[in-house]
Amino acid sequence: MTGPLSSGKLLLPKGFSFSSLAAGLKASGRSDLALAEAGSGSTAAAVFTSNRVVAAPVEVGRGSLAETRGRMRAVIVNSGNANCATGSAGLRSCNEVCRAVGRLLRVSPDEVFPSSTGIIGAPLPVGKILSKLPALIATRAASGQALSEFAQAIMTTDTRPKLASRSFRVGEREVIVSGVAKGSGMIHPQLATMLVYVFTDIEAAPAELGRLLRGTCDQTFNCISIDGDTSTNDTVLLLASGKSGVRFHGSVVREKFSVALLEVCQSLAEQIVSDGEGAQHVIRLIVDQAKNRAEGLRVAKAVAHSLLVKTAWAGADPNWGRILAAIGACGVRLDPGKVDICIGDQLVCRYGVASPFDEKKAHHHLTQPYCEIGVRLRRGHSSLAFLTTDLTAEYIHINADYST
Amino acid sequence: MTGPLSSGKLLLPKGFSFSSLAAGLKASGRSDLALAEAGSGSTAAAVFTSNRVVAAPVEVGRGSLAETRGRMRAVIVNSGNANCATGSAGLRSCNEVCRAVGRLLRVSPDEVFPSSTGIIGAPLPVGKILSKLPALIATRAASGQALSEFAQAIMTTDTRPKLASRSFRVGEREVIVSGVAKGSGMIHPQLATMLVYVFTDIEAAPAELGRLLRGTCDQTFNCISIDGDTSTNDTVLLLASGKSGVRFHGSVVREKFSVALLEVCQSLAEQIVSDGEGAQHVIRLIVDQAKNRAEGLRVAKAVAHSLLVKTAWAGADPNWGRILAAIGACGVRLDPGKVDICIGDQLVCRYGVASPFDEKKAHHHLTQPYCEIGVRLRRGHSSLAFLTTDLTAEYIHINADYST
Repeated sequence: MTGPLSSGKLLLPKGFSFSSLAAGLKASGRSDLALAEAGSGSTAAAVFTSNRVVAAPVEVGRGSLAETRGRMRAVIVNSGNANCATGSAGLRSCNEVCRAVGRLLRVSPDEVFPSSTGIIGAPLPVGKILSKLPALIATRAASGQALSEFAQAIMTTDTRPKLASRSFRVGEREVIVSGVAKGSGMIHPQLATMLVYVFTDIEAAPAELGRLLRGTCDQTFNCISIDGDTSTNDTVLLLASGKSGVRFHGSVVREKFSVALLEVCQSLAEQIVSDGEGAQHVIRLIVDQAKNRAEGLRVAKAVAHSLLVKTAWAGADPNWGRILAAIGACGVRLDPGKVDICIGDQLVCRYGVASPFDEKKAHHHLTQPYCEIGVRLRRGHSSLAFLTTDLTAEYIHINADYST
Repeated sequence: MTGPLSSGKLLLPKGFSFSSLAAGLKASGRSDLALAEAGSGSTAAAVFTSNRVVAAPVEVGRGSLAETRGRMRAVIVNSGNANCATGSAGLRSCNEVCRAVGRLLRVSPDEVFPSSTGIIGAPLPVGKILSKLPALIATRAASGQALSEFAQAIMTTDTRPKLASRSFRVGEREVIVSGVAKGSGMIHPQLATMLVYVFTDIEAAPAELGRLLRGTCDQTFNCISIDGDTSTNDTVLLLASGKSGVRFHGSVVREKFSVALLEVCQSLAEQIVSDGEGAQHVIRLIVDQAKNRAEGLRVAKAVAHSLLVKTAWAGADPNWGRILAAIGACGVRLDPGKVDICIGDQLVCRYGVASPFDEKKAHHHLTQPYCEIGVRLRRGHSSLAFLTTDLTAEYIHINADYST
């Protein structure tokens, strides 16, 4: 299935080079090791998983960002192994990789940001990675092709790479924001990681990047769910080379950059959901008139995570009773007698009871690749959009038909 | 599949009669209307769904129990229609049924406890029910056969009726506790209701029954989950005729009755889980060394509701990384480095990292109809058992392959 938003043309921000290759971590033999190098003076900010169980690279990356106060020169990512639940040996392996990359690139090991995605609980094959690093670094290139191959190398069970670019002009100068992401595939059934890297050539202080990235994530990656399972490795990194010559300063540039970043992240979030395991439909849930954002999010997640609602969507069944029941059980002290539910542009439940509607039309709407469900709570003025998928037998097959 | 506990021989408590018939609410033509009559002086207590969306019979039954202060003379149950999200018309229909039963049995309408289970949002076909009430009441009988048929009539997508009995002696006298339940089927995809009726001939005040029932439910029906969806009609009713001549009084009788009630409810809870939609395995989750019961329950539910964990179980895959990731994301501020996980009697994860184990043996354990997963948190002294199931493609087919 295809998502509603295309990723657009891939643009190369100034001040970056990329490379990737197969180090033998994926049984398929596909590329599984990727490098991004950023010029001197590059700044960074990151957002990590909220899971209490975190992988070694998340611990190391978080520590390095604190140590360097947001100065980063490289990103090294492997797929095929999550380096999670691997204890102190996993931390040692991760640090060893960062040290080797730093030595080869002549930067501090703290300026190398590590990521891993793949099987939880298996030791990182650090020897395979170390032996391929010289070749990886020798082949780096400042090209859109190399960035596109970077996006391929970080995939696990994704059926396609996820990329998005935006640009804007400030006088004669152009600022580029390009993001790549992986996530929401799980054909090998221990992979559950969303990794996002956004590269830009704007010049900005790490604290500025951090504030902006957190706000953007709340509106994009924190508003999606395939199956409600939170990975141990989730990472979103924003890396700014400053090589556009444009400083993140003044309301016009700030506004333009914020919009470009939001659009890139929104596009990547939608690409992740539309590539969800076994998904037939992307569902855009609009929760309207909640008391506040937290309440709206709670209602959205209750609907998005209800197995009965997700299976009804898989059958294109306009079964609003299941949606109402999921809302009623979500822990918000709402009055069910004030709840409206829409499927597409039809009101199907009004003030908590059935509203006459055209069932064929509602069914037809739910057969589309992109569907809208609206919920009105009549409790306040907060409104949000949340993206999720249906739950199909294919999801079960992908995640169950595997035996150690 | 069959559950681990047999229901035992069905015993008839004194002071009750039962009947059931087909009133045409189920398209299959099977029995869908059931009556239990209790002698004068009978007392009752009930526990209802925590969903904010509640069906009309839940509202009416709750109100009647308050009005009569726990005096009940009859239970009238229909399957095939939930009478939920039906507004004031639904309440009128429910009251009309109670009034008619009261008139025919010569008891107050408030002493008639109503239940419904079936489609949400469709009007209750009250005419069909009213026209069958005289025949229903004329055929009531004080027999185990009639009680067994009552259990059949309240089924929706259950593949078998759920019954359990226990008895104990106090001197020459015998006290019987017999329970029937329905739940966890959803072949017609809007049914999601658990109904439980426990009939006993002990003599007890409604407040005594209420205290005991709430404590028992916490240990049984509140510790099970098929799919994490909370119904709008869930009801557990305990009805005591007092006709055994034994009073709920003194530590010996209290203890014996509490154990009998707990065993009946535990058996019914296990029967409900083992009849879960598409379930191949019943999973008994033991969460040990939690700080308190609420924390243990939160961890158990996070594991029981993780799609990735449930699909791993469907594939008999000893994938403890998914269990650890689900625990880490549940919101308890635990230290993952202190968590142990067992599959069957094998330790597979020790202090948050892989512990060497026999994968074939763990896989074999997970192919059994009844499996045990242990989680040790090392945070305190609270321990609990939680019953759940795997998630199979059959579940999806049952709930998705339907279109209005």
